[in-house]
Amino acid sequence: MDAPIYMDNNATTRVAPEVLEAMLPYFSDLYGNPSSMHTFGGQVGQKIDAARAHVARLLGAFPEEILFTSCGTESDSTAIYAAIRSNPDRKHIVTTRVEHPAVKNLVEHLGKNGYQVTFVPVDRQGRLDLDVLYDSLSDDTAIVSVMWANNETGTIFPVEEIARNVRDRGIVFHTDAVQAVGKIPINMANSAVNMLSLSGHKLHAPKGIGVLYIRKGTRFSPFLMGGHQERGRRAGTENTASIIGMGRAAELAMAGMEVENSRVKALRDKLEAELLKRVPNSMVNGDPENRLPNTTSIAFEYVEGEAILLLMDQYGICASSGSACTSGSLEPSHVLRAMGVPFTAAHGSIRFSLSVYNTAEEVDRVIEKLPPIIDRLRQMSPFWHEAQKSGK
Amino acid sequence: MDAPIYMDNNATTRVAPEVLEAMLPYFSDLYGNPSSMHTFGGQVGQKIDAARAHVARLLGAFPEEILFTSCGTESDSTAIYAAIRSNPDRKHIVTTRVEHPAVKNLVEHLGKNGYQVTFVPVDRQGRLDLDVLYDSLSDDTAIVSVMWANNETGTIFPVEEIARNVRDRGIVFHTDAVQAVGKIPINMANSAVNMLSLSGHKLHAPKGIGVLYIRKGTRFSPFLMGGHQERGRRAGTENTASIIGMGRAAELAMAGMEVENSRVKALRDKLEAELLKRVPNSMVNGDPENRLPNTTSIAFEYVEGEAILLLMDQYGICASSGSACTSGSLEPSHVLRAMGVPFTAAHGSIRFSLSVYNTAEEVDRVIEKLPPIIDRLRQMSPFWHEAQKSGK
Repeated sequence: MDAPIYMDNNATTRVAPEVLEAMLPYFSDLYGNPSSMHTFGGQVGQKIDAARAHVARLLGAFPEEILFTSCGTESDSTAIYAAIRSNPDRKHIVTTRVEHPAVKNLVEHLGKNGYQVTFVPVDRQGRLDLDVLYDSLSDDTAIVSVMWANNETGTIFPVEEIARNVRDRGIVFHTDAVQAVGKIPINMANSAVNMLSLSGHKLHAPKGIGVLYIRKGTRFSPFLMGGHQERGRRAGTENTASIIGMGRAAELAMAGMEVENSRVKALRDKLEAELLKRVPNSMVNGDPENRLPNTTSIAFEYVEGEAILLLMDQYGICASSGSACTSGSLEPSHVLRAMGVPFTAAHGSIRFSLSVYNTAEEVDRVIEKLPPIIDRLRQMSPFWHEAQKSGK
Repeated sequence: MDAPIYMDNNATTRVAPEVLEAMLPYFSDLYGNPSSMHTFGGQVGQKIDAARAHVARLLGAFPEEILFTSCGTESDSTAIYAAIRSNPDRKHIVTTRVEHPAVKNLVEHLGKNGYQVTFVPVDRQGRLDLDVLYDSLSDDTAIVSVMWANNETGTIFPVEEIARNVRDRGIVFHTDAVQAVGKIPINMANSAVNMLSLSGHKLHAPKGIGVLYIRKGTRFSPFLMGGHQERGRRAGTENTASIIGMGRAAELAMAGMEVENSRVKALRDKLEAELLKRVPNSMVNGDPENRLPNTTSIAFEYVEGEAILLLMDQYGICASSGSACTSGSLEPSHVLRAMGVPFTAAHGSIRFSLSVYNTAEEVDRVIEKLPPIIDRLRQMSPFWHEAQKSGK
């Protein structure tokens, strides 16, 4: 199989060669347990500290505010359970209708187990109804969890503003920043965010490593109990190689932020503009202004997203409909439904998510190959013919 | 630093070169998300299934009974929470006094949060008091969790027998088999064990990957909620490379079990016999019969284990006092205390844990270097001189 045209970087990313190179010594050479007394193990602990410092710098945080976990989902669970266990009398949780399943499904579970949950709605462009959010807050609210940027549309939420307002009410604020970190500047130094989740494999570190930022002074309770690792905040032998890789990926992300917001953004903009121009009845989902530089979600009306993906797959073009974490189900995306995207558009929505590894040639190839695919599928679509007849 | 003489394999192991080789393609080439619709991601899912089948074979299990987690600790937490959440009316937990912190600390936490806990004691040789265990069982017992083999002494517990008796009472049985898998044959086919935890990095897979075996029909409740991965039993993007590595390590463990129980055991036996012969006032901790083939815990009376480790470290010899997961504290091992090992012996206990990578030359070097170290430390020990005077 030829190398694919990979435009599914919000699902997962290639491990950067520099990251892999940094990791390699920690498998078969420097494999000691950082908790061991001997130098062979102990030296690994110092490397973990260095990686922690790199991640802290990316976030404008202190190293002791960085907790390594196994993935973004574990970071989200850790944050939410820490907040509710530290405030056991508070039984209200606020989140949004467009969260990743890692937050959405956990909060829905808690909603069936003694918690009242407010799911803040979004408008047609995916923007949060902040009045609903603020009006819902009370002395019973344990945590507000709002993603920094949406994984499907790339829409960026006013997280800093919400965090300040929530803090003033004495409520814990958490953000799932899995899609935002590495793509847009994030600085915890002057922030009111209490906890922030990120995932290594969304920014060219390997799968199986996540981070939870925990602001100093935030009350905490561990999710994984057992050994004393991570200063008692996360038990389990440190995933050394992946932590080292995460540190290197954080360095690369800082260095590459400019490229992400210039070259990658330009590629995304060209891809989007050309597809909208060449394909009738197509439109962008989400807020076109406040948006990640790498993401575009385009609705191609009257066709099935899965069919588009299958035909693109024949050219080695990788994109997605909805989030990878909800795929397998044939339900339309809960994000697009929450935005009120009509059925005929939601079903034909494709997310392209680029990275620094994408090229202008790849973009040109998608611009060349995709419009005929849409046209071909529409010829087979009864919805399309009906819409044509009614002049839509 | 020269390659160490690494005899701390119960703390963590070298990633086998074959394992690393199997993992490498999944970082920068086959990096797709197995949940993605496109072939590039989908093909990875098939490789994960193959790895699952290898792990299943190592355990005599069905592939669908194998759940990939991030570590042994997560496997233990998943098992224990699954049992108590599936049996919410049962408020009694049975475990042992010599469990790894991953079970011990979690169960102690539960003991402070509404659960009654029975910690089954052990005798001077580390053998469980089965009468206490069986007598403690009641209709209120949700789970019995007994480790397969102890990490510090290598003592093997009669897990299969306990599991049968527990099953007959309608109680869930879990075993932390982190130290046993790959070292001794384990077969779930005709077993009464409901759930079994293992950790990749104890058998030459990388850190950051664990497995929970869940017998078909065992009631289950996920620990990490979110996406649909692992058939809804463990959310979070699959740690592809490490899962592939785990599968390869399972294959190697099956093939290497014979070596483990002949060559590795012979090396351990020689190391132990020679050290006991050359060092007066030394003795083996634990059951000399029912014991892992790679482990020996030797008490050198009247010296400090940490001092022994530091002096051995100068020769690049890596071993441990107690478990790596409890190190950092100066308390003597809770395992040796539970066995009633006297203070003067517990403090001077060193665990040597070998692997297939150890050589006869390495064993000879430890036999040569360690006795003078003990002698030197004893010359500085007031306890030793006092004991000599009193003729002990």
